[in-house]
Amino acid sequence: MIIGISARDIRFPTSRDSHGSDAMNPDPDYSCAYASIEMSGGDPTGHGLTFTIGRGNDLCVAAIKGLGVHLVGRKLDEFEEDLGLASRLLLNDSQYRWLGPEKGVVHLAAAALINAVWDALAKRAGKPLWRYVSDLSPAKFLSAIDFRHIRDYLPEEAALERLESQYAGRADRIERLMKDGYPAYTTSAGWIGYSDVEIVRKLKVAHAEGWRHFKIKVGGNLQQDVERCALFRNTLGNDVRLSVDANQVWDVADAVTASRAMAPYDIYWIEEPTSPDDILGHKAIAEQVAPLKLATGEHAHNRVMFKQFLQAEAIGFCQIDACRLAGVNEVLAVMMMADKAGIPVCPHAGGVGLCEYVQHLSMIDYVCISGTMDDRVIEHAAHLHEHFLNPIEIRNGRYIAPTKPGYSIDMWPQSLADHEFPGGPVWAEDVHQ
Amino acid sequence: MIIGISARDIRFPTSRDSHGSDAMNPDPDYSCAYASIEMSGGDPTGHGLTFTIGRGNDLCVAAIKGLGVHLVGRKLDEFEEDLGLASRLLLNDSQYRWLGPEKGVVHLAAAALINAVWDALAKRAGKPLWRYVSDLSPAKFLSAIDFRHIRDYLPEEAALERLESQYAGRADRIERLMKDGYPAYTTSAGWIGYSDVEIVRKLKVAHAEGWRHFKIKVGGNLQQDVERCALFRNTLGNDVRLSVDANQVWDVADAVTASRAMAPYDIYWIEEPTSPDDILGHKAIAEQVAPLKLATGEHAHNRVMFKQFLQAEAIGFCQIDACRLAGVNEVLAVMMMADKAGIPVCPHAGGVGLCEYVQHLSMIDYVCISGTMDDRVIEHAAHLHEHFLNPIEIRNGRYIAPTKPGYSIDMWPQSLADHEFPGGPVWAEDVHQ
Repeated sequence: MIIGISARDIRFPTSRDSHGSDAMNPDPDYSCAYASIEMSGGDPTGHGLTFTIGRGNDLCVAAIKGLGVHLVGRKLDEFEEDLGLASRLLLNDSQYRWLGPEKGVVHLAAAALINAVWDALAKRAGKPLWRYVSDLSPAKFLSAIDFRHIRDYLPEEAALERLESQYAGRADRIERLMKDGYPAYTTSAGWIGYSDVEIVRKLKVAHAEGWRHFKIKVGGNLQQDVERCALFRNTLGNDVRLSVDANQVWDVADAVTASRAMAPYDIYWIEEPTSPDDILGHKAIAEQVAPLKLATGEHAHNRVMFKQFLQAEAIGFCQIDACRLAGVNEVLAVMMMADKAGIPVCPHAGGVGLCEYVQHLSMIDYVCISGTMDDRVIEHAAHLHEHFLNPIEIRNGRYIAPTKPGYSIDMWPQSLADHEFPGGPVWAEDVHQ
Repeated sequence: MIIGISARDIRFPTSRDSHGSDAMNPDPDYSCAYASIEMSGGDPTGHGLTFTIGRGNDLCVAAIKGLGVHLVGRKLDEFEEDLGLASRLLLNDSQYRWLGPEKGVVHLAAAALINAVWDALAKRAGKPLWRYVSDLSPAKFLSAIDFRHIRDYLPEEAALERLESQYAGRADRIERLMKDGYPAYTTSAGWIGYSDVEIVRKLKVAHAEGWRHFKIKVGGNLQQDVERCALFRNTLGNDVRLSVDANQVWDVADAVTASRAMAPYDIYWIEEPTSPDDILGHKAIAEQVAPLKLATGEHAHNRVMFKQFLQAEAIGFCQIDACRLAGVNEVLAVMMMADKAGIPVCPHAGGVGLCEYVQHLSMIDYVCISGTMDDRVIEHAAHLHEHFLNPIEIRNGRYIAPTKPGYSIDMWPQSLADHEFPGGPVWAEDVHQ
């Protein structure tokens, strides 16, 4: 039985070195609100986190504590029997719902808790999360999804039919995943705060490690953006993939201009060209810059937003986030809609724990939903993995399938103690906070 | 100079009597996070609030305190010289922005603070807010608006041209407002938790008071919804206006079915038929139920969402909210876009202080932007006005133009003390919290 919920404010001082910097977010301190679900009776503790970039992480911690009371007193068996229960309990508190609805701090907090429940379920089953979900029957998988407000695009019956038709090939795909892993790209060489010298050095190192798909941050000054693309091609040539990420800074017209200016450098996708809420804006940009494709989603807050991006044919890549969406359940809904649209799911990661999270999600997409890894990549950033008990493993630019039970999000007790804000030793002497 | 920001958690136990109940929100405790900007040097204290329905109000209080540091140390003159300054300081904190962006708890908190700055400016000028804004030059008015991410729909030049063309008729419209007030409708008779007997009694009382436009809550059970519409027409006849409000509970197909079933009762608008994020869903419903019109906006979180509702011709009425949007500045942007689209602005109110707020906004729309009150109404609900120093005044179903300086949002010290959560006397003995 769940006997208590705790949440801690964990922050890493990444802004001191411009790690993670982009055009909209010049000085992020990668942070997380780290939730723990304490169980009685020998069931494993479930962990989940939601990712933020610093100030306001305390709001997510407070929201986790406030929402968490809905889980206390429930048995893990109840969540296993009804895979939608945690989502319903947390998202349908009408008073908290008002603060979104289904967006912002409250949604981020719900994600941490929902993910913690899945973590506990997978741990108890002795399986990594991707495998736990892959072993569900199609009907059971479907029961995790809330179809409210999306069934005009994806009715339950069509979703079930798709899952059933993919069920037969499961075993082969699991075997292939265990053998080959999942393709990835790296963002670590291209933060906007890095100098050209630093970028060239990091690109070369990453290429030597086996990376063949890179992302660089743009959106500062158009001439510099184009120069960055040229620098990239001059450094690594034309046999590797390049995506660029503007982090929302452009208006529609500017996005079109910038995309066209960078197009000669063979851009795989243009990410977050404008406001993440602007479905029709993305559609307008996409139409004007085709065949160049757009990617967005790390700030798309729920399944209704993704539904529209897909309906409008506004995006060429679907960038789910493991905790911007309300945890595993809502991610499953979005991945099924992307599959229907024929749009590759390429998760947003980096941050704290996002790589650990999303590897499971892409693997679920491959095994249970889309049945393919073609055109799909998981984002990778090289920092902060040392704080996790079961960090990601990368080999030749691919994620190795996790084998340890759970959702890979447990952090080391010492890491938590060191980085707790504001009292932990990393922060205690920081005069800027 | 601003020397400090305070915020208080104020809650009213409205759920005890089903006041404010609807299909999505069965038991709201109308609440507000009440912000005060303390000034040195004799400048007036600015007040602003953001409205919530109970649990989680504490998150808005915490966010106001966290964001508020950006205002401390600034002079009121700086905000007067640059009407966009408060918005920029509060919305462009990149770390807090991550938690939205521009939505949810952080946006609600920014609204309270931005509105408090406008309140202080209007108070110092000795004018009610609507009049303070009406007396700005078109260029000065325009400087309050952030055109980022909306200029593809409304470029600055077009907005300025519209304001200038309306400038000449200002004095006449101010005179008419002072004489006749602004048309309104009432929601107080139709909460979903009320019995039929209660509704009939309240409708008759409201009609006798002069009300001619009413709204009732639907979205429970379709047969009951239709019976409610019939009850309404049987009670008050066909010479009054009826709007219905489903508070988001329907899917697209259900919304079409329900709207058609109620259409014979001459429905002025169908409000929140589905997810407030579903622009394309509203468009699909609107096309199928025309000439019946849709209204939404109380949960539309920013100017980018409204832009799309207008671009898609998905709504027939634009329901701005004074603190869901980031305060006066973002409301001005949305009202200008609605004007361009030819869609009437009919603000969401009720709650705590929303009527006090939005009367000013509709009056600004009339004087400075649209130049008309045709088809436009301000929502009215009859509760909680006694807690405000300068409550709204209604005569014959119309809002009387406020004359006291400021944004009408100052609450009585005793009301604040009594309803502070959780320590105030109203809550101290409540065992349910």
